[in-house]
Amino acid sequence: MSDALLTRLICAAEDSAQRRAIAKAITLLESTRADHRAQADELLTALLPRTGKALRLGISGVPGVGKSTFIEALGLYLIAQGHRVAVLAVDPSSSVSGGSILGDKTRMERLSASESAYIRPSPSGGTLGGVAEKTREAMLVCEAAGYDVVIIETVGVGQSETAVAGMTDMFVLLQLPNAGDDLQAIKKGVMELADLVVINKADLDAAAATRARAQIISALRLFGQPSHSDSAPSGRGALKRQWQPQVLQLSALTATGIDTFWAAVQEFKILQTASGKLAQRREKQALAWMWERIESGLKQFFHQNAKVQALLPQLSQQVAQGELPASVAARTLLAASVGAAADII
Amino acid sequence: MSDALLTRLICAAEDSAQRRAIAKAITLLESTRADHRAQADELLTALLPRTGKALRLGISGVPGVGKSTFIEALGLYLIAQGHRVAVLAVDPSSSVSGGSILGDKTRMERLSASESAYIRPSPSGGTLGGVAEKTREAMLVCEAAGYDVVIIETVGVGQSETAVAGMTDMFVLLQLPNAGDDLQAIKKGVMELADLVVINKADLDAAAATRARAQIISALRLFGQPSHSDSAPSGRGALKRQWQPQVLQLSALTATGIDTFWAAVQEFKILQTASGKLAQRREKQALAWMWERIESGLKQFFHQNAKVQALLPQLSQQVAQGELPASVAARTLLAASVGAAADII
Repeated sequence: MSDALLTRLICAAEDSAQRRAIAKAITLLESTRADHRAQADELLTALLPRTGKALRLGISGVPGVGKSTFIEALGLYLIAQGHRVAVLAVDPSSSVSGGSILGDKTRMERLSASESAYIRPSPSGGTLGGVAEKTREAMLVCEAAGYDVVIIETVGVGQSETAVAGMTDMFVLLQLPNAGDDLQAIKKGVMELADLVVINKADLDAAAATRARAQIISALRLFGQPSHSDSAPSGRGALKRQWQPQVLQLSALTATGIDTFWAAVQEFKILQTASGKLAQRREKQALAWMWERIESGLKQFFHQNAKVQALLPQLSQQVAQGELPASVAARTLLAASVGAAADII
Repeated sequence: MSDALLTRLICAAEDSAQRRAIAKAITLLESTRADHRAQADELLTALLPRTGKALRLGISGVPGVGKSTFIEALGLYLIAQGHRVAVLAVDPSSSVSGGSILGDKTRMERLSASESAYIRPSPSGGTLGGVAEKTREAMLVCEAAGYDVVIIETVGVGQSETAVAGMTDMFVLLQLPNAGDDLQAIKKGVMELADLVVINKADLDAAAATRARAQIISALRLFGQPSHSDSAPSGRGALKRQWQPQVLQLSALTATGIDTFWAAVQEFKILQTASGKLAQRREKQALAWMWERIESGLKQFFHQNAKVQALLPQLSQQVAQGELPASVAARTLLAASVGAAADII
């Protein structure tokens, strides 16, 4: 069955047939049924050689910053240039709020009407790790289906920016012009993930946008990037130009500055490809994904153990109250879970 | 045996006998022999009720910032006030460099000569997690032996600052006056751990120290702390004074400003105790320590599996090269490791 699905994903004569194949593939990948899981693994393995050619763009920013407007403007710009654009989302809160940030396609009415765009809301429910994994897999499906720009949007709940930066080639942070007056709003650790910061709605208050830009450049310089002397090779690579995080101003609403934005993305891609950093980033991401999955599987195995379930509440309480050393509690629980193997720990 | 050792730790009539008991206890805790490990668990459990009364102070800063000089000056100041001071270290590189940052006690000649001070180099070898765990346990031994100020020093290799901030009540970052001219030197993520930043050698260049202080205050404000409006309860706790990270200037060499530093530490302790944050921090640390230990035990269990060892190199390579989906590789390895349980993952 996965063979037939793969064929339809890749070779569908009509956009609508391919779109249905994509939806079906993603539904299969999201299923928790064991037989579906086996088919999903087969499908993923089969489509993998057809992935990797797209540019993977992560986009984050607080609610109200204009992410949808920006993504729609960018998507329409790219489609006009002949690209095919997929928009996915990582929103671990979507199961709580009862709807995804992208659940309502009318948010991007013009883009979703285009035959060259595919828009999919965040997988709902589960942990960030689970949501992120489903989105990664959906990204591979879209790439196999020939979408050459994949945009992954996140509202930045919890650690979702880190997850999205960890599955994309370039991470873009959207800011409002008034960020310059209230840099507290920039969440800890997010700025340092940004390859590019976009100040949206720059047309509303040019002075504020300029102030914001100066502040953000200073923040990027302070904390965003390690000193290049630490990491640059002293040999033949030393003279290669490196990408430096940039700050752009634009207005998504009037679609002003989208071309400059895309030019910066292209420059990023050229520099990172030439230096080998893009390939390294993807390799690192794939291995990190594997290890994340293994660790989460081991934790699940641990938590499903009946003896662990019986012991954990009391031991946790004793550790929290300082009645039992953490290491002793850990060893007790490990012995309960992995049995004899624990004596080697 | 651990009973007798505990008695000597707590009740030794002479400092030298107690010192030998501490050394023996720490050696026992660092042993990897299974029978020692059982005794160590017994000892840790027995001494735990006698721990927790000390102030736990983490101190970090780049080499050359004057950590030893500062710790010696602070230690001598505290001993003169009747405190007993233990100095431990977390230096995961000590096995590589062949010597610990505190291996040479002559670095703190006067402090180590005092009967009210106990100085112990970093446990050597192993991962940061292992080194940190041994230091945490050594800290408990020192507290049970009546040391009421425990200083944990780290040079800040890799993630060691995070580990030290995660085992102490207060994390202090030492900076040089010229940091103001080169804030790139402030490592990503370290500034936000700091409860207090100390500009040492402030006597060398007062203008530079003042500049550094302004820059660091601005950096702390930008990134160091979440907006208080996010976390402060709106009810009865809302009016309580909260600790705000401070920046002090001093000169460890001339022991100028040590009293101001200690007054700030006392203020921190009073505010954090009153708000309950100190107790919360310790509770969180104990539970985090337990989970860290469990996760590392599960990983060890995974890596020691013969089937995993046989499969891992090839699967990792295939994942890195984009030939195998990360999630498929993870499921294959989990099935090899935890067997039938993996079908639920």
